[in-house]
Amino acid sequence: MKILIKHLFVYGLLFIIHHTVNAQSTVEQWGRFELTLKHKPNGNAFTDVNLKATFTSKDTAYTVAGFYDGNDTFIVRFMPSKTGVWKYVTQSNIAALNNKKGQLECIKATGNNHGIVQVSDVYHFKYADGKRYYPLGTTSYAWTHMPNEVQEMTLRTLKNTGFNKIRMGVFPKNYDLVKEEPTLYPYVIKEIKKDSTGKEIKVWDYSTFNPSFFQHLEKRIDNLHDLGIQADLIIFHPYDKGRWGFDEMPMEANLHYIQYLTARLSSFQNIWWSLANEYDYVKSKTDADWLTLTKAVIKNDPYRHLCSIHGSTAKYFDYWRPEFTHVSVQDEAPVMNWGAASIARNIYNKPVIYDEVGYEGNLKHRWGRYSGEEMSHLIWMGIIGGTYVTHGESYMFKDLRDTIFWAKGGELKGTSWKRVGFLRKILEETDGGLEPADMSRDAKTTTTGKGVYIVYLGNEINNKWLFNLPHKNANFEKRPVKGNRYKVEIIDTWDMTIKVVPTTFELSEVNDYRFYDKDMKQVRIPLKPYLALRITEIPKL
Amino acid sequence: MKILIKHLFVYGLLFIIHHTVNAQSTVEQWGRFELTLKHKPNGNAFTDVNLKATFTSKDTAYTVAGFYDGNDTFIVRFMPSKTGVWKYVTQSNIAALNNKKGQLECIKATGNNHGIVQVSDVYHFKYADGKRYYPLGTTSYAWTHMPNEVQEMTLRTLKNTGFNKIRMGVFPKNYDLVKEEPTLYPYVIKEIKKDSTGKEIKVWDYSTFNPSFFQHLEKRIDNLHDLGIQADLIIFHPYDKGRWGFDEMPMEANLHYIQYLTARLSSFQNIWWSLANEYDYVKSKTDADWLTLTKAVIKNDPYRHLCSIHGSTAKYFDYWRPEFTHVSVQDEAPVMNWGAASIARNIYNKPVIYDEVGYEGNLKHRWGRYSGEEMSHLIWMGIIGGTYVTHGESYMFKDLRDTIFWAKGGELKGTSWKRVGFLRKILEETDGGLEPADMSRDAKTTTTGKGVYIVYLGNEINNKWLFNLPHKNANFEKRPVKGNRYKVEIIDTWDMTIKVVPTTFELSEVNDYRFYDKDMKQVRIPLKPYLALRITEIPKL
Repeated sequence: MKILIKHLFVYGLLFIIHHTVNAQSTVEQWGRFELTLKHKPNGNAFTDVNLKATFTSKDTAYTVAGFYDGNDTFIVRFMPSKTGVWKYVTQSNIAALNNKKGQLECIKATGNNHGIVQVSDVYHFKYADGKRYYPLGTTSYAWTHMPNEVQEMTLRTLKNTGFNKIRMGVFPKNYDLVKEEPTLYPYVIKEIKKDSTGKEIKVWDYSTFNPSFFQHLEKRIDNLHDLGIQADLIIFHPYDKGRWGFDEMPMEANLHYIQYLTARLSSFQNIWWSLANEYDYVKSKTDADWLTLTKAVIKNDPYRHLCSIHGSTAKYFDYWRPEFTHVSVQDEAPVMNWGAASIARNIYNKPVIYDEVGYEGNLKHRWGRYSGEEMSHLIWMGIIGGTYVTHGESYMFKDLRDTIFWAKGGELKGTSWKRVGFLRKILEETDGGLEPADMSRDAKTTTTGKGVYIVYLGNEINNKWLFNLPHKNANFEKRPVKGNRYKVEIIDTWDMTIKVVPTTFELSEVNDYRFYDKDMKQVRIPLKPYLALRITEIPKL
Repeated sequence: MKILIKHLFVYGLLFIIHHTVNAQSTVEQWGRFELTLKHKPNGNAFTDVNLKATFTSKDTAYTVAGFYDGNDTFIVRFMPSKTGVWKYVTQSNIAALNNKKGQLECIKATGNNHGIVQVSDVYHFKYADGKRYYPLGTTSYAWTHMPNEVQEMTLRTLKNTGFNKIRMGVFPKNYDLVKEEPTLYPYVIKEIKKDSTGKEIKVWDYSTFNPSFFQHLEKRIDNLHDLGIQADLIIFHPYDKGRWGFDEMPMEANLHYIQYLTARLSSFQNIWWSLANEYDYVKSKTDADWLTLTKAVIKNDPYRHLCSIHGSTAKYFDYWRPEFTHVSVQDEAPVMNWGAASIARNIYNKPVIYDEVGYEGNLKHRWGRYSGEEMSHLIWMGIIGGTYVTHGESYMFKDLRDTIFWAKGGELKGTSWKRVGFLRKILEETDGGLEPADMSRDAKTTTTGKGVYIVYLGNEINNKWLFNLPHKNANFEKRPVKGNRYKVEIIDTWDMTIKVVPTTFELSEVNDYRFYDKDMKQVRIPLKPYLALRITEIPKL
């Protein structure tokens, strides 16, 4: 038996160091420590071998599951959250894998390593190190199942965007316009049957995973990590339609799959769990099943990565359950109408991500033919409601072999993706999550609570804007007062320009719930849609 | 000891029949049976005497609490839900009240007795006998605490409106513009203290209720019943501000109050429980307290009347809890914006009543100065989202002694109340609850699922409407098909007119998710806001 320790992720670099078990090893905070144990198993190592390890620091202990990676290799992965020495010891029903001890030193994170993303300030997100994270993601359900050159193209594409999240499925997709057969399958084939029409049907051995499939998925998640992108990983989806049957496996197989997936991936810093896309279209599972599966994910993820579930249009799961860290919902009405995005937020008291409000594209389907302007506008409509909206693109220009980013990745052909990058820059410049300043009364004004406002004018066209701010300042204690002075910038969300208004504004008394400039000054704005205003308090001398 | 049986409510009539215990008595289904037992108690009958009775029919049994009504009188009330003979037997820790037996015959409901209102079809309501109930209520928080002539005026006013629900508090109200001292208090005064400023402070004996207070409340609830109006009874509210202290009684007193209130009122056919108005402004109670209080109400209400809780603007309680039959929320954004009303409905899968979106009136407060048109429009905006909206009026014309319907009742001075009656007539003509036909995509078209559509055009002004219907028909199985023919009526929701369009329309093929008339016919409409269209399928010959 050989024992290997790999530790990965010192950002951009990949160290593979071979040690004996008791050797000291260093890994960055929220990085990935990997203990590899070689052992030739008898029987089915995926079902017959239990392996876990307990990692103990001065004041914390984590017990994490290991997994069989094929090729007589057993692996335990761990993501240390605190600096200092962590000791570990394995437990297994196989003597050769049991009671293996060692330690690692967790060192401070460096560079772009900010830790896992978590909920912050009820409605928003931060990395574990406190840096704010504003989810501005896109969608490519089956990109990891495309030919390798398309996958590489997808990564090159993403590198040049501002996206920091991508929704993607574990399983391949069989749907209109997406018919590609994957090169790797998650399971070993037990037999190939033919149905009455002579069509081949693969019968899977659900007890025997195909490690190559998962190794490939992991490589892609690491690739995304290198680009600063969170992998919002869709565990189940309905886009199978009898082709592979991964949407209708027996419950025991579902739970085994979750156990294996989470053992492999929980230590990945940039993973989010999405139990399903359009869960309600997966006809083989009930709401109770979904809850069982969700609980299984959480039980096996000691780090408690972000976790949600996604339904078809306007289908809201029981997001108030503590298992769900945030709302990941498909619904366009909340962002197509002023004042509507905040409602779900007010109900759940959790972050809301509208993870599908339609796609910029040229499809026949109404969900797949927004203009770039509309897609960009809907994302801003979410932001101005104190929520977040995920981008998507579904252009189909040539033939069925054309990549269509929505499912296959490849190149982006639209225009809204660039505006998402511009929005991200603006959000990252603000110090705080944006909160609707005067809930249910003013649908256009958000505040950081600390003197910065973003006002979004949307599809309204005016030549001036009367300077005014609400008296309310969301739920922040400090409200604006008479005499406060502000700088105003005009943001063209479409042309991606920011112009400073060459005058300052000073608050008069509160008048009918609002403040106006003491001279009732107006801001001259261009006669164009999709403008926003950034209003920043000028510190008193 | 004397034993009396009263049975009330043979609609409009009030029978008081004195019987010995074992006498047969008849009462209508969902009517109120009352067993009165005379006994001179030792000590405090409100706290020391337990009294309940079990009513048993062929296949059902209810155990209901009795209560002390003062004047050596103990009462047990019961609302039989099924026709036939019900036998009862009392249980008490007082021998004189224990093991009293008798029976009653429950006869079929007659006239306007349709039973209690319950949830139906997920998002809507029906009376127990199956008749649909469309909640179109108004609000008068403290009308039962005004001088008697104002209360009588309120009842005369309500009689001439279409309102079928009223939100009203048990306790008196102390708030801007509502300062009246009630003539009755729920408790006996223990002592009167003076605070440091010399102001008198009443100290209540929370263990000793004042039966007259509750008898008066009951009389008013019965008066409402005679008018076909549901009493949405607010059990707690924050509008006290140290004047009486009913918003900050000890938890034990709160629970005793609920026990007493529900023992008295659960048998009232037209009662709804509203745990609070603006619960979050009641600073003495936590969310956990509210849940405890809600559970206490339900435990003591064997009939399970409708039950909810109401918060301040955009404050949504945990309405998904099974204790709450429906959502009773204060929020104006959902009805001020197209497509927004349905969001809460989709989330909770329960009926949503926007029980406060502001008031028609002339107050300075922004919540109290809508025009009649705006109030009426907001109510229609709720209806078109598959939800319901409660009316309110807050005109203040003369001086502080002027009645202001919102709190005091009296006369209605506005214009929207009449339109609510008109709307009720339209809803009662439809056979079904109105469901958004194409959720999240078409915010203006509702369907009964059975060939009747209501399209609301709101504040848009056009001179024609291209006849079109969505292909989707909410979640109803039967979608419209090519060749279907329809009658169209133009409803002027403000002028309260309904005009039939003198031509019929026939569906062509589905085209981009919609049906159009085969000749692309348009409906000529007047250049006015607040129009609706009623589109009714013409049966095939």
